[in-house]
Amino acid sequence: MEARGIHHVGVAVADLDEAVRTYERLFGGRLEHRARVEDQGVEAASMRVGESRIELVAALDADTPVGRFIADRGPGMHHLAYEVEDVASALADLAEQGAELIDGAPRQGLFGLEVAFVHPESVHGVLSEVVSRG
Amino acid sequence: MEARGIHHVGVAVADLDEAVRTYERLFGGRLEHRARVEDQGVEAASMRVGESRIELVAALDADTPVGRFIADRGPGMHHLAYEVEDVASALADLAEQGAELIDGAPRQGLFGLEVAFVHPESVHGVLSEVVSRG
Repeated sequence: MEARGIHHVGVAVADLDEAVRTYERLFGGRLEHRARVEDQGVEAASMRVGESRIELVAALDADTPVGRFIADRGPGMHHLAYEVEDVASALADLAEQGAELIDGAPRQGLFGLEVAFVHPESVHGVLSEVVSRG
Repeated sequence: MEARGIHHVGVAVADLDEAVRTYERLFGGRLEHRARVEDQGVEAASMRVGESRIELVAALDADTPVGRFIADRGPGMHHLAYEVEDVASALADLAEQGAELIDGAPRQGLFGLEVAFVHPESVHGVLSEVVSRG
């Protein structure tokens, strides 16, 4: 599979408002989207920095995947997402290469994207995501 | 300061050869540069994935910053580097915004780049780097 490049870097934060301001202030980030997604237990903000994108993700409560990540490791880099042409065919290629998939089929991600996650054990500790515009 | 975008995502790995092969195999990565830098205690490989760049960094021994990172947290995402026009003026802007700098002045980084690091405490837990072609 040939990924097109990094779609975004996902960063787990404790305080979303403050994190948005930090990325605006330090790196000239611009808020692109912001959404609260109850069933994923997150509130997220997509920031553009130049042509690149940082996805800031805060937990809606402690007993969520992002809440547990922050409790275990503190805020910080959480996942790395690659843009692909088609998530389903990327998943087929990844499975053929022996990667352990968290999502066996594409699902609806944040901001209307079609996404799927690959287990960090298959990518040297990096929780990896493939993304397309769906 | 207006960063131009993400220059690379730095990933700490235990086995550099195996990690290069993983990024080639799973995401179509292409090896751009590889170097052993004794005084930084690392061997690093710059991989292109589409237009983006992943910097894989392995420790030359356990008693180095990357070696200690891996011992503490395991392999995984290590730092996030932004491309800027000029590292010295980016550092002046970051200091003015109250960011705690690890490098008060630009220094020589991997692969001939001019670099400086910002303390993760100032960026919600993300070790952040500013990079220019020097």
